[in-house]
Amino acid sequence: MEKTSIRSKLNVKIKNPILIEGLPGIGLAGKIAIDHIIKVTKAKKIANVYHPQFPPQVLMRKNGITRLLGMRIYHIPGKKNDLLLLAGDVQAQTPEAHYELTDKLLDYFQRHGCKFMITLGGYGTGKRAENPAVFGAATHKELVEKYSKMGIEFGKTRGSIVGAAGLLLGLGKLRKMQGICLMAETHGGFIDPKSALVLVNKLSRVLEIDIDSSDLEKKVKEGEKFIKKIEESAAKTAGEQVAGNVDELTSYIR
Amino acid sequence: MEKTSIRSKLNVKIKNPILIEGLPGIGLAGKIAIDHIIKVTKAKKIANVYHPQFPPQVLMRKNGITRLLGMRIYHIPGKKNDLLLLAGDVQAQTPEAHYELTDKLLDYFQRHGCKFMITLGGYGTGKRAENPAVFGAATHKELVEKYSKMGIEFGKTRGSIVGAAGLLLGLGKLRKMQGICLMAETHGGFIDPKSALVLVNKLSRVLEIDIDSSDLEKKVKEGEKFIKKIEESAAKTAGEQVAGNVDELTSYIR
Amino acid sequence: MEKTSIRSKLNVKIKNPILIEGLPGIGLAGKIAIDHIIKVTKAKKIANVYHPQFPPQVLMRKNGITRLLGMRIYHIPGKKNDLLLLAGDVQAQTPEAHYELTDKLLDYFQRHGCKFMITLGGYGTGKRAENPAVFGAATHKELVEKYSKMGIEFGKTRGSIVGAAGLLLGLGKLRKMQGICLMAETHGGFIDPKSALVLVNKLSRVLEIDIDSSDLEKKVKEGEKFIKKIEESAAKTAGEQVAGNVDELTSYIR
Amino acid sequence: MEKTSIRSKLNVKIKNPILIEGLPGIGLAGKIAIDHIIKVTKAKKIANVYHPQFPPQVLMRKNGITRLLGMRIYHIPGKKNDLLLLAGDVQAQTPEAHYELTDKLLDYFQRHGCKFMITLGGYGTGKRAENPAVFGAATHKELVEKYSKMGIEFGKTRGSIVGAAGLLLGLGKLRKMQGICLMAETHGGFIDPKSALVLVNKLSRVLEIDIDSSDLEKKVKEGEKFIKKIEESAAKTAGEQVAGNVDELTSYIR
Repeated sequence: MEKTSIRSKLNVKIKNPILIEGLPGIGLAGKIAIDHIIKVTKAKKIANVYHPQFPPQVLMRKNGITRLLGMRIYHIPGKKNDLLLLAGDVQAQTPEAHYELTDKLLDYFQRHGCKFMITLGGYGTGKRAENPAVFGAATHKELVEKYSKMGIEFGKTRGSIVGAAGLLLGLGKLRKMQGICLMAETHGGFIDPKSALVLVNKLSRVLEIDIDSSDLEKKVKEGEKFIKKIEESAAKTAGEQVAGNVDELTSYIR
Repeated sequence: MEKTSIRSKLNVKIKNPILIEGLPGIGLAGKIAIDHIIKVTKAKKIANVYHPQFPPQVLMRKNGITRLLGMRIYHIPGKKNDLLLLAGDVQAQTPEAHYELTDKLLDYFQRHGCKFMITLGGYGTGKRAENPAVFGAATHKELVEKYSKMGIEFGKTRGSIVGAAGLLLGLGKLRKMQGICLMAETHGGFIDPKSALVLVNKLSRVLEIDIDSSDLEKKVKEGEKFIKKIEESAAKTAGEQVAGNVDELTSYIR
Repeated sequence: MEKTSIRSKLNVKIKNPILIEGLPGIGLAGKIAIDHIIKVTKAKKIANVYHPQFPPQVLMRKNGITRLLGMRIYHIPGKKNDLLLLAGDVQAQTPEAHYELTDKLLDYFQRHGCKFMITLGGYGTGKRAENPAVFGAATHKELVEKYSKMGIEFGKTRGSIVGAAGLLLGLGKLRKMQGICLMAETHGGFIDPKSALVLVNKLSRVLEIDIDSSDLEKKVKEGEKFIKKIEESAAKTAGEQVAGNVDELTSYIR
Repeated sequence: MEKTSIRSKLNVKIKNPILIEGLPGIGLAGKIAIDHIIKVTKAKKIANVYHPQFPPQVLMRKNGITRLLGMRIYHIPGKKNDLLLLAGDVQAQTPEAHYELTDKLLDYFQRHGCKFMITLGGYGTGKRAENPAVFGAATHKELVEKYSKMGIEFGKTRGSIVGAAGLLLGLGKLRKMQGICLMAETHGGFIDPKSALVLVNKLSRVLEIDIDSSDLEKKVKEGEKFIKKIEESAAKTAGEQVAGNVDELTSYIR
């Protein structure tokens, strides 16, 4: 059996694409952001991605139909640059699968002419921010200069970018590709649609495209009401597990 | 050393087979069901399946003879459709082994003309059901419609189907095979012959064949007496570990 | 890099060999037994065995010299049958490595004409036996009959034989080789030279050769005095950790 | 995707090189020592080393630029012997990756004429030493004799040398290479610049080269003041977690 399997669903002409990656990670910030963009832009799915080191599972959907866990690539035509969006249910589960999959994905994106990528994620701080910052990290110095001017804060984060959001940049750089990672400030301990919203808004500015974020804003407000209720309830029952509530929130947002 | 090794034991003519899978999983529902069917129908073993990522162990049988851990494929001739039954001691232990093994098994079943499969499992609810439901999930919409009519409840389960029962459907669909997973409602925390019984009865209806389930019904009754005793005893000694009792139950049922 | 690497050290003529395996396992029964036999018979090392899934470590010996972790194959010439002994510092660490290594070892032993093997181990009972039994498990029915007559108890053990002692039998049987596993009754929670002694004595009878076991008997007696002291001390300080003492015992015995 | 990838950055003539390895390990003794030597000697980086079983991460540097986790090889020209230094962010994460990577590194070093290596590490004793000893382990007896005369203590350590520092010696010996491991006495529970300092000083004597260690000495003194403060504070608040303080220390030293 082959390793990474990228199965084309649709043949479209792709023009100077920029890759935008948003897979599950801290606060689900990147995943919520990209799933939102796919929905509001009606992006076309052009490929499914499977890997024998993804969890050996099928998802059960509400309609009773199963779906093999995987990633998906979507296409949005643009004026100067098309966008290729990398979304999905999972990340690779082992270092080797991460490297092999990222390598194959970069082959695919390079073959379609991609030279620049933006990866999305959350940066966990352990506390909730009123107005989450968007932190950045870049493959090259000139990108730090360029994107600092757009309100992205470089050099303020520590540690590592784990998974696809980091490895696409790291392995891409070895192929002379350039890229930045946008990390929304988030608590890290729960799913955070607000951090996804700031990513969407920043992407809108960086890419100079309109992305309708009203739907996501509504979810953020509902989510905040929900969290407020949890906090009030938690304040009353200090010491109790709120895991159940967080689960409710999770299923509500996805 | 090769990976999946499927060793034919017996050459038989196989006619339009339907695959029925019943490997160890939640509540051992699928395994107990299929082992029961093999026994009462005197199904013929036609192949042994070994894999270098199965646990590196041999089982010690009561007669002092060892047996390498593995899976087994059985054949039951039918009027319109023969049955191929996939039973065994273990499931694969890593995602990669799951994918590789499932792929090789699908090669084998396709080579023998198989186009449709029914996988068996339990759906853990955390509580014991008086009359366990049979939930379903399917690869294609038309199957949901067809099997809903036979009292299989689709769209009521959440999450994932893990292991062979799910992956056979997921990877089979990529090969244009069709299939459903039947999941018996079960507690999930212990071995449940009653959930196996409802699977056997449902299969009997779906496949339009008679399967003598009297032996299994007897075990269910004995098992329930046994569980009742455990519960009474547990009620007396609340807080004590009942693991020992569950083990007794396990060895009693297998 | 290749996987299993069997490096010949010495070319000797090998005549109808029987394989005796004694690698680290429950109670170190098999390892102590085989290391004793190698020592008292002055068996010649004929090969080193390395594997890239052994722990990536070198042992530091008392003389300041390092040794790569591995297995070793020794040769003892015999009247009717030579013996090939498989000893070592480690077992494989993953299922796949176990299977691959065992397969390569069986290639090696078959190439040297080996048709029969005896694997050694401990069978943990959770208590200390005054006169440890030797349990057996065999690849074929006729072996159960033959060796039952020599005081080896078949069919009294449950569960699995894990690791090389089991897998050599399981994979060997697929190649038409025959074999038995001798398991000395042991506590399972600590190193047990007495269980090693009963294995040595039983092997002596089964193979119809003399093995001087006086040195091992001495160690058993010293070990028992030592354990008695630990137990007395443990009785005084009930609840304290005796791990330190067990370590002392370990380094004393090896 | 290939496994170990050694990417040359600079072509230099290399003369009878000795390999010095200092990767992350006990007390970070080896890593701090080699990073110090690279800095004060202005060693030239001649190669980057990547591996698909390193953690799939990029480091975020202070300037906002990302760097793929990896190892690096540096070159220092010498009178009789050049030095090749192996430094890095990580060690391999699985046994197999350790073996494969070490094998490829030995290929590289042998190709450049390397016959002798010194690997660096810490030897954890569970207590802090006023004047840490330098323990040694060697591939060959003659090395034990030679280096014992330089105050390196052989035969005083037990157990295994885990990771690159051990495996380079073990696999190198199979290729007829020679080498010693220098282990600085250290607590083992925290980062220890003092143990790094004794390694630097011992290397300076063994290699007969001057290495300016004033900068490291300063760090040791500051580190000790820092630890003293922690201990005083810990004495006051016995039972509190000092993990936070140790983290501060870590970031201070690196």
